[in-house]
Amino acid sequence: MILIISGTNRPNSITLKVATLYQELLAQRGQASEILDLQDLPLDFASPTLYKSELYSQEFLSLRRRVAQAAKMVFVVPEYNCSYPGVLKAFIDGLEYPEALRRKKGALVGLSTGGQGGNIALSHLTDVLHYCGMHVLAQKPRFPHIHKHMQEGQFTNPLYKQLLEEQIEELLVF
Amino acid sequence: MILIISGTNRPNSITLKVATLYQELLAQRGQASEILDLQDLPLDFASPTLYKSELYSQEFLSLRRRVAQAAKMVFVVPEYNCSYPGVLKAFIDGLEYPEALRRKKGALVGLSTGGQGGNIALSHLTDVLHYCGMHVLAQKPRFPHIHKHMQEGQFTNPLYKQLLEEQIEELLVF
Amino acid sequence: MILIISGTNRPNSITLKVATLYQELLAQRGQASEILDLQDLPLDFASPTLYKSELYSQEFLSLRRRVAQAAKMVFVVPEYNCSYPGVLKAFIDGLEYPEALRRKKGALVGLSTGGQGGNIALSHLTDVLHYCGMHVLAQKPRFPHIHKHMQEGQFTNPLYKQLLEEQIEELLVF
Amino acid sequence: MILIISGTNRPNSITLKVATLYQELLAQRGQASEILDLQDLPLDFASPTLYKSELYSQEFLSLRRRVAQAAKMVFVVPEYNCSYPGVLKAFIDGLEYPEALRRKKGALVGLSTGGQGGNIALSHLTDVLHYCGMHVLAQKPRFPHIHKHMQEGQFTNPLYKQLLEEQIEELLVF
Repeated sequence: MILIISGTNRPNSITLKVATLYQELLAQRGQASEILDLQDLPLDFASPTLYKSELYSQEFLSLRRRVAQAAKMVFVVPEYNCSYPGVLKAFIDGLEYPEALRRKKGALVGLSTGGQGGNIALSHLTDVLHYCGMHVLAQKPRFPHIHKHMQEGQFTNPLYKQLLEEQIEELLVF
Repeated sequence: MILIISGTNRPNSITLKVATLYQELLAQRGQASEILDLQDLPLDFASPTLYKSELYSQEFLSLRRRVAQAAKMVFVVPEYNCSYPGVLKAFIDGLEYPEALRRKKGALVGLSTGGQGGNIALSHLTDVLHYCGMHVLAQKPRFPHIHKHMQEGQFTNPLYKQLLEEQIEELLVF
Repeated sequence: MILIISGTNRPNSITLKVATLYQELLAQRGQASEILDLQDLPLDFASPTLYKSELYSQEFLSLRRRVAQAAKMVFVVPEYNCSYPGVLKAFIDGLEYPEALRRKKGALVGLSTGGQGGNIALSHLTDVLHYCGMHVLAQKPRFPHIHKHMQEGQFTNPLYKQLLEEQIEELLVF
Repeated sequence: MILIISGTNRPNSITLKVATLYQELLAQRGQASEILDLQDLPLDFASPTLYKSELYSQEFLSLRRRVAQAAKMVFVVPEYNCSYPGVLKAFIDGLEYPEALRRKKGALVGLSTGGQGGNIALSHLTDVLHYCGMHVLAQKPRFPHIHKHMQEGQFTNPLYKQLLEEQIEELLVF
């Protein structure tokens, strides 16, 4: 079971569409997966209770548990202000350290409406995940100008599809 | 007027103590400043409304306005998982781009209970602030094992005090 | 006097062409500048003598002196393996620390034949220059696919020209 | 066979001592390894011929071949100006891309005489190695103030020894 984290809680995000596409491509290879959608975070999860695990809500504990149970994870990461979304980092700040991610395997995907495709975002996230003990797949496909290259949940750009499929092949044997 | 951002909403943080010390040291040099405490963020600020500025609460708009009015800013940044707190990044994600930070001057201070003092956190934040158009002072003092070097709101380690004062001297003429 | 560092010693580089264009654009604004071309480095500068300043050749000392005398510097940086060229970093490793760069002002320009334009390279270089005490201009224009957007020493892409001119305007008042 | 890269060509470096210690600890676990010492680089390797593989000397080709043949690699990295040595990056710039490192496994070790232990250096190097297709072990031990914690080729600080041994255990099964 691979856990795909849709890395923003922005409504109607392309990020969630890419996460869904990732799940389809995994399914075509017979690999089961689940999506963890950050839109399911409690509205006030990033309040001061974030630092008191004894005060966590059932909803938040349930999301945490899904991370705890996954051995392989995919992070679909939109670029916000040249890094990952603050909300994604706040979610990681609320995970159990170091049990949540240690010795697990992760794959990162970067998206942007601009021209970077989130490469600095993925660099920052790699620093964080390495610190948490997660091994990160070297291949990190990036999809700049993503809004111009997706339609009805599929990539219209063949290179984008190829890059995603190459990452999946690597992830399955990582 | 310098705006000092206390970079976490964790209750009883050493971060806020360092922000307060920073304000005192500025006052000793005749420089007025204000603290923006991330504990004043609305509890649900990092919910999906973060991406719809027309839905912002009066409280959030008021914090945003304080940033908009500042020409120089100090970021006191605790290290969470080898980077800045997600909550600090989420706050930046909710600022007006690029007006909020463009062509302004910023100074960064790193803290940690561990041995890094947040140097990777400050590197990540520099990427974000540069992208937002803010010039960042080269001197970025870092205070590892901060809990062992502070008492009653003052640094007990003379080197820490010296590093902070050197940054302040540079910031005043930046 | 602004010193423009052409950040590679690769012969016939586009980097040197961009450095030359930078100089022309500065001259149009009445600003004098000089180019420091890394092709002028002694062939063996990165040998073990790099760590013994008493063994430096006259050629190397002369390049070092030019850096020492500059108050503002521009780094034109091609992307090699997702970072700056090793040769550029080896040159910085041979400068006098911290006198060479401390309290000076720097502007960075990124180039690549690929699609990144060196944004991670510029992030890395910013870390290094900040450590050396140099203030780095927030605006860091990047020029991906540079070989397709230059002809006879001029940018053929109007956006590239605009970005470079905007940086120059900022640098002159930094 | 694991290849241990001693990441500087500085004579009498502690880096080479740590590389040698690494080799001993691997041998105690029955794991064969070799050291690639950057002091063996031709004195002029970072001259303009670096970008013309048809002009490479036999010495340089021989070092390149050793990298090509290794499936697992260790990088012992001293911190120079808040990053890896320029000479290490120049060596990587001269490797065959992407064959040299692609789909290989790497482990990083950071050293410094100062207090950072090279954590930003290792972050930068991770960006480079990931770009080159090498998977990097999450555990990256760092050894600040290394000159105070080594004697006669052994760590005198038990924590340093433990961190290195923990990395080795992880590397052997990576």
